[in-house]
Amino acid sequence: MLKRSPLRAISLRIPAAPTATLSLRPHLIPRSSLSTMASVDERIKELQDKIKALKVAKQDASKEVEEMKALKAQQSKDKKDGPAGFQLKVPKGTIDHKPAAALLRKKIFATLEGIFAKHGGEVIDTPVFELKEILAGKYGEDSKLIYDLQDQGGELCSLRYDLTVPFARYLAMNGVTSMKRYHIAKVYRRDQPVMSKGRMREFYQCDFDIAGTYDPMVPDAEILYILIEALTALDVGEFTIKLNHRKILDGIFELAGVPADKTRAISSAVDKLDKLPWADVKKEMTVEKGLDEAVADRIGQYVGLKVLTVLGKGREVLATLQADEKLNTIASAKEGLADIALLFDYLEHAFGVLDKISFDMSLARGLDYYTGIIYEAIVEGSAPPAPAAADAAAPAAAGKGKKAAKSATVNEDGVDESTVGVGSIAAGGRYDNLVNMFAEAAGSKRDKVPCVGVSIGVERVYAILEQRRRAEAAKPREKETDVFILSLGKEGLLPERMKLARKLWEAGIKAEYQYKAKPKAERQWAQAADDQVRFVAILAPAELEKGVVRIKEQGIERAAGADNGEEVSLDNVVEYLKARLG
Amino acid sequence: MLKRSPLRAISLRIPAAPTATLSLRPHLIPRSSLSTMASVDERIKELQDKIKALKVAKQDASKEVEEMKALKAQQSKDKKDGPAGFQLKVPKGTIDHKPAAALLRKKIFATLEGIFAKHGGEVIDTPVFELKEILAGKYGEDSKLIYDLQDQGGELCSLRYDLTVPFARYLAMNGVTSMKRYHIAKVYRRDQPVMSKGRMREFYQCDFDIAGTYDPMVPDAEILYILIEALTALDVGEFTIKLNHRKILDGIFELAGVPADKTRAISSAVDKLDKLPWADVKKEMTVEKGLDEAVADRIGQYVGLKVLTVLGKGREVLATLQADEKLNTIASAKEGLADIALLFDYLEHAFGVLDKISFDMSLARGLDYYTGIIYEAIVEGSAPPAPAAADAAAPAAAGKGKKAAKSATVNEDGVDESTVGVGSIAAGGRYDNLVNMFAEAAGSKRDKVPCVGVSIGVERVYAILEQRRRAEAAKPREKETDVFILSLGKEGLLPERMKLARKLWEAGIKAEYQYKAKPKAERQWAQAADDQVRFVAILAPAELEKGVVRIKEQGIERAAGADNGEEVSLDNVVEYLKARLG
Repeated sequence: MLKRSPLRAISLRIPAAPTATLSLRPHLIPRSSLSTMASVDERIKELQDKIKALKVAKQDASKEVEEMKALKAQQSKDKKDGPAGFQLKVPKGTIDHKPAAALLRKKIFATLEGIFAKHGGEVIDTPVFELKEILAGKYGEDSKLIYDLQDQGGELCSLRYDLTVPFARYLAMNGVTSMKRYHIAKVYRRDQPVMSKGRMREFYQCDFDIAGTYDPMVPDAEILYILIEALTALDVGEFTIKLNHRKILDGIFELAGVPADKTRAISSAVDKLDKLPWADVKKEMTVEKGLDEAVADRIGQYVGLKVLTVLGKGREVLATLQADEKLNTIASAKEGLADIALLFDYLEHAFGVLDKISFDMSLARGLDYYTGIIYEAIVEGSAPPAPAAADAAAPAAAGKGKKAAKSATVNEDGVDESTVGVGSIAAGGRYDNLVNMFAEAAGSKRDKVPCVGVSIGVERVYAILEQRRRAEAAKPREKETDVFILSLGKEGLLPERMKLARKLWEAGIKAEYQYKAKPKAERQWAQAADDQVRFVAILAPAELEKGVVRIKEQGIERAAGADNGEEVSLDNVVEYLKARLG
Repeated sequence: MLKRSPLRAISLRIPAAPTATLSLRPHLIPRSSLSTMASVDERIKELQDKIKALKVAKQDASKEVEEMKALKAQQSKDKKDGPAGFQLKVPKGTIDHKPAAALLRKKIFATLEGIFAKHGGEVIDTPVFELKEILAGKYGEDSKLIYDLQDQGGELCSLRYDLTVPFARYLAMNGVTSMKRYHIAKVYRRDQPVMSKGRMREFYQCDFDIAGTYDPMVPDAEILYILIEALTALDVGEFTIKLNHRKILDGIFELAGVPADKTRAISSAVDKLDKLPWADVKKEMTVEKGLDEAVADRIGQYVGLKVLTVLGKGREVLATLQADEKLNTIASAKEGLADIALLFDYLEHAFGVLDKISFDMSLARGLDYYTGIIYEAIVEGSAPPAPAAADAAAPAAAGKGKKAAKSATVNEDGVDESTVGVGSIAAGGRYDNLVNMFAEAAGSKRDKVPCVGVSIGVERVYAILEQRRRAEAAKPREKETDVFILSLGKEGLLPERMKLARKLWEAGIKAEYQYKAKPKAERQWAQAADDQVRFVAILAPAELEKGVVRIKEQGIERAAGADNGEEVSLDNVVEYLKARLG
């Protein structure tokens, strides 16, 4: 509602004559329909009041709740089929985050921001849309999922698709050659939404990236440490980080005899190994992509073998590959293996987190983009077991003393179809060429700005935490109010409630009261209970004369009889509440 | 960088053959240009290293800084005119918020969120775009400033223009009839940007609104209290809240004889009184809008008179209007005056903030949209004095013991052209019909959901705070790191630095070290100094053998000689630092 300049009126211009230019077409609604709806509305309101009263009196309200729900469902159906033809809704694939959900997300963000700042992260905030040409050519066939803004004259723009390309653009544009940055913001993909799985068209990403030319694996180790720290702090449950290295994969392809022009296609097939059995992936390689069967089989020896794909112990996989003489004749594979060995040293001896890492040859994600290590965090409770290897994987998980092998609908290839695609909760890798691509294109030749980063999937973190809350059957709080000020007696005591509220606000205490001059006692108690406010401050004429207020803690069952709270002097109420709130 | 499902590769697909589909056209850049740029780059890098070294040695580096700046300016010019024709930039009217700016904004948001939550506010988070029809017909002639998304099949959507319409849509869609909500988010207006004045196409709004049917002026008083609390907490300097009431203004128009069909046009003319002198506004009313001169003069008696427009004391203006017998014959004016009287009682006796309120008949903002009180907060340092009344306004301001009348370029009509339009820092009002408009249009007749709200202009708050920081010549911090771990000696001690960092991170202490195996001492000191890190933790072989680390506080000038810091046992370093960091 803020006016930006005196000459520009930005207000909502509802025309004086309501039939004039209203786009919402209220005149299309027949009067009969309106009046029916009105009476249903009234009945619902009646029921709501009754339910509140019954709850306050601690009596059974289930019959009333049922009737109300039925009426609401009917009403909502009527509305959808309604004659107005106008639907109040948000765009497809988007949702409103309501208070409880928004508050939980805020807490997730605060946890992550605290960790990012602890590691020297700097925050940047880029525009929600970029010039179209900045995003063009960056997402391959997924470019069709980019939202474009309409051409209303001037530049052509698109909504950001991720936070990585804007970050690379930022570095190149500002000539920044080293930076640790974090960015939490929404990104946009015009994909087919699957709301039940949390795949939306507007969703949050939380990215932390380290840009700069440093010694090998030092920033990489810290990124992985941060990821582990974050998932631990967010308390998402047991998790594993699958790790691989692009140069090792390239080496395997070279060794197997994959033609250079097929590398991308083949690595994209390998990327499906967490969803499809090897037989299907092999078929894609040979039948669809024309690879020799012998070549595919050689790849299979590395990415399809149990011992290599699922063994939780990174050191053993590393040792197996280091002992592979043929593989070590390939320069890139040798470099990749040296990186991993160094990384494991840092993670084990300096940071003590190697047990969270699984070295997984079947992880191939984002090969066109990454140039070094790649990784993906999997929450074990919901992770798909590795194809044809669920039995081998189970002991590793059970070894941590938590969940053993899942009892799920595992198909003949060992793939649990029910959990496919819901396990990955964070991902990232090293990308050393992206920033330069921008800088060079803009005509400025710079030193390389190598980067390594991670993106944490907030929507999945949220889904896990929300699911747990539901399982605990706790009603989520929608606000943080600590004290509800209510009045007893006919006078209402509005100015007195206001004055006490002001006193508490000035002391930083979260306080509310009802915006009625003479509110009913039961309505006030109901509001305090609904909002799960911890303390109720009771103002009543007799106590006020004595200069005291009664403070009652809610939700605490007392051993004996009615709890009337504690009388506290108005002069001391701030200190009293501060002490009890901690 | 997060992969959303195993079947969808969202990576950046940089083609294997770089000439293939790259949209950034690096092949358009002549080689000669590239090599010139490369040598300039090298020189700049040389200079940067030299400047750092000089700074570490506390020697004068101004010559080097100058040369570097000149080279960078030339380089940036070359880039713009460059043969590639490709510009690395953000879309017109948008900016990247860099770390120092983003951090300051984060602090502003945290302050506001703390206040909003203290008053029982619930946070919601709506999509950045809405269905086009939700925004249609809400912004009058400013609708042309709405950003539309391209029609890529499916629904037509537009970027949100403010946070009020999405809030009203949310209430109507969810059948919510009472709610205190806050929302801090970016909004979008395809306006002509004036970056120097902070008018951008993408900018933040911070809104707090109270929806629900309550007793008169109770939520209104709290909204104004919150606004005053917020501006005080943000420390924006002396401010005043200009207040008016739509019903009083309507009454004045009725009394003056404005035809009903001209009310909107005339109130929009009145709205310009903070920018234009009365003579111009009158001309707009009579010549442009065809109002009788006699009618305009009668309006002028109310909105143009010194005593009514500028007197800071709301009570006196109220008394003058209450004593106006003719005005009190108009029902709406009488209702408005009763509202104001009640509001003033709450603000004075319960909340003690009436001295911040100025009752200003010339404030007419958003009349098409608001139905009750309206207000606008003006920071006095940058507020335009009321036309033809600067002398009357000055004593009121001076009376608060702060800034007296400004010495500015006041024109013949008393308008300070240099400050026009930069004074308003927050605004809002009561709007009782908006939610219903949605509900009714969707075919659901509901009780009214009256609302009152305020929107705080973050960009202006930011501009004021940033200006002050510049005036104090303080270099803003870009990160929050508290401890920089550095190593002395040839060994580099990377694992030891990592281990100490891990120990500090685990204790929640913000710590960094350089990502080099064997970093140079001066480079490490320079980084710690650049980032204004408070403590340096020095690891050296001799101390490590003793199990100690030296902790040195930066930026503290010691009375005598070199400060080598304090030796602290590695076992106690966490407790030591926690105590010193407080």
